[in-house]
Amino acid sequence: MAREEVTVALLGGGTVGTSVVELLTEHAEDFRERVGVPVRLTAVAVRDASKARPGFPAELITDDAVAVASSGVDIVVELMGGIEPARECILAAMAAGSSVVTANKALLAEDGARLFQAAEQHEVDLSFEASVAGAIPLLRPLRESLAGDRVRKVMGIVNGTTNFMLTKMDEEGVEYADVFAEADALGYLESDPSLDVDGHDAAAKAAILAELAFHTRVTLADVHVEGIADVTADDMAAARDMGFVIKLLAIAEKIDDSEDSGVIVRVHPTMLPRTHPLAAVRESFNAVFVEADAAGQLMFYGRGAGGHPTASAVLGDLVAAARNRVSGSRGPGESTYTALPVLPIGRAYTEYYVNLDVADRPGVLASVATAFAENGVSIQVVHQEGHGDDAGLVVRTHLATDAALEATVEQLRGLDTVRRVVGVMRVEGDEQP
Amino acid sequence: MAREEVTVALLGGGTVGTSVVELLTEHAEDFRERVGVPVRLTAVAVRDASKARPGFPAELITDDAVAVASSGVDIVVELMGGIEPARECILAAMAAGSSVVTANKALLAEDGARLFQAAEQHEVDLSFEASVAGAIPLLRPLRESLAGDRVRKVMGIVNGTTNFMLTKMDEEGVEYADVFAEADALGYLESDPSLDVDGHDAAAKAAILAELAFHTRVTLADVHVEGIADVTADDMAAARDMGFVIKLLAIAEKIDDSEDSGVIVRVHPTMLPRTHPLAAVRESFNAVFVEADAAGQLMFYGRGAGGHPTASAVLGDLVAAARNRVSGSRGPGESTYTALPVLPIGRAYTEYYVNLDVADRPGVLASVATAFAENGVSIQVVHQEGHGDDAGLVVRTHLATDAALEATVEQLRGLDTVRRVVGVMRVEGDEQP
Repeated sequence: MAREEVTVALLGGGTVGTSVVELLTEHAEDFRERVGVPVRLTAVAVRDASKARPGFPAELITDDAVAVASSGVDIVVELMGGIEPARECILAAMAAGSSVVTANKALLAEDGARLFQAAEQHEVDLSFEASVAGAIPLLRPLRESLAGDRVRKVMGIVNGTTNFMLTKMDEEGVEYADVFAEADALGYLESDPSLDVDGHDAAAKAAILAELAFHTRVTLADVHVEGIADVTADDMAAARDMGFVIKLLAIAEKIDDSEDSGVIVRVHPTMLPRTHPLAAVRESFNAVFVEADAAGQLMFYGRGAGGHPTASAVLGDLVAAARNRVSGSRGPGESTYTALPVLPIGRAYTEYYVNLDVADRPGVLASVATAFAENGVSIQVVHQEGHGDDAGLVVRTHLATDAALEATVEQLRGLDTVRRVVGVMRVEGDEQP
Repeated sequence: MAREEVTVALLGGGTVGTSVVELLTEHAEDFRERVGVPVRLTAVAVRDASKARPGFPAELITDDAVAVASSGVDIVVELMGGIEPARECILAAMAAGSSVVTANKALLAEDGARLFQAAEQHEVDLSFEASVAGAIPLLRPLRESLAGDRVRKVMGIVNGTTNFMLTKMDEEGVEYADVFAEADALGYLESDPSLDVDGHDAAAKAAILAELAFHTRVTLADVHVEGIADVTADDMAAARDMGFVIKLLAIAEKIDDSEDSGVIVRVHPTMLPRTHPLAAVRESFNAVFVEADAAGQLMFYGRGAGGHPTASAVLGDLVAAARNRVSGSRGPGESTYTALPVLPIGRAYTEYYVNLDVADRPGVLASVATAFAENGVSIQVVHQEGHGDDAGLVVRTHLATDAALEATVEQLRGLDTVRRVVGVMRVEGDEQP
């Protein structure tokens, strides 16, 4: 018997949930045509059911998320965020035979394996396009469009708040503390700002991207994370002088050198040449750059957050899951067949920019150059600047392992010709390993 | 009984076909893991079976494309191009129960309805990611990721050869004839160069994009096409002076004004502000900008042509079709439920840039301004330049219908204060209707 409708329950009544309800209602006819049968919202679970919610169908609202999740509808949309009770609800939904659409990057990055396993066990779909880079179609392209290719590297701006802050610092020369206060006043920061500025939000997204790109399991704990709190207006100005811009990048790459193979996943402030496509991504926009063996360089650009943009991604997943219900099929499940190990950041190939305060006397450059050479790090450019107490050296290296670069910096700190290591930053987008 | 393999036959042994065979062979293990069973190539139909083809399994080569197409394999990959015998082969393949993966933009734009209908009738998949913008995952995002959203406009650089030519003209100040000769010498032009430079290749892609974006049938004949042959080094310089760049854009948009609703699809040289994301797309790269109601602005960027990049898209489709075979399901079919009419270009809202040689006497600006006003076109900026025989006016309008702008230019041509209409070009990316 042909099915007459697809039923959907929503967990979470925040900004994105509100947009989802609004669009499902306003464009009901589009959903009916695109799915083949009507899509009917059966319940919306919210934290406070007594709060007035204009536009929400009052009769569908409840505060019992677990009951809604377990109700056995075709699709449960989870927009509560956080680990619990979101995990309990998603597992209950799958156990009841429901496919799940979620935007929950934290849960996926922490315990994605358990969710994928439950989806497999109960033969349902688990989709999560909205968990990374909001509206940008990115996970479906990685999981499906590039399924015939081999991804080498994924590098992206995936946290809009820090990109807004770094854009301000770059364009207006303001200090970190001032732009932090501005982002806070504008309500751009998470309630725990550390999630944004210390890179944890970007790290969760990096783990999800790495798993999809390289078909191996990656969790939040595998990601090397450095935030933007130490980036100064001086760093920005120095980068600008050299034709670079500083971005907080999430980078996942496959290493395949003489030692062994694996993936490295990292989030840190990065200097990029201004000619790089990611350098032009301003304000709170997100963009992800993908390098694949056959496809070459690809970039995906758009809004990474906001009610309607995130709802667009949620609803794209919803239509796909609904079509699968109608046809009795499923989308691709977890793919971890490469079982590549996660390697430590020391194994990453990167360039360093190093800014040093040095003594103003002959032999300084020689001693600094020796420190690089002894660690096997080749120098690309050196600028000597200033005199006396202002004497400085700015060094940009060629590609080397992060471990060799870190050892070099450690050695520089011990030189009596070096008064202070003023700044150290990784550089991407310039050379190929 | 679980199936043991997915069988694939290839029609076409050109650059892309060669890359497809190479990647299928080299990465056989990846395909097996991603599909669930081995993917086996059963035959390759080429024009000249006697030609030596290193890397091709000799025992699979034949010149009987129709026999290969009709062989009843799981998936037929059509990379012959052109209308016939590609159409005959695709229809034969579907009649034999095979899903079809094709890169054939010309056939899809001319007779896509027939192919979709056959796919529906025989319950097979028809996928064609490689037909537009090569390696860039674009059609799957439009068909699936944005299935919960409403697309307003699609605007892209979809012909790499003309973008290479226009980039050279912009950056090096060379004339069209010289850059044409250079593109020809580099082998960048189609064997019929008119397909590139007169915009027909871009028009076929525009028709495909429009159909997917707006869920309505659009064919090549519906597309308004103007090529780049009339773009001069002077036009380029004038655009640069105003902070603009000239690109050949394929534009598909939904019109929903007081008169009625419909779509307009057009390809023409276009002035874009240099700050627009598409303005930075250089050389032979492609990029497509999408505006959707909920998602906002998105951009997809990458290589639009070449053996390996196009093969990446073909193989992504191949994996999806193969997974569907394994699970006994199908991807989304044709969606034309909105049945929006295609409107004439006169109904498009656009800005014009108009460059006039004028008489050097009082009252010229008044007469020109009157011509704009009488056609209901509002002027945004006017520059008066030069004196005597060099007296000129450069006008940029606000948004108006293309019909009103064309009527204005016609009226300008009749004014005795206007010696010559030197240049007229549409402007995009600046104002919203």
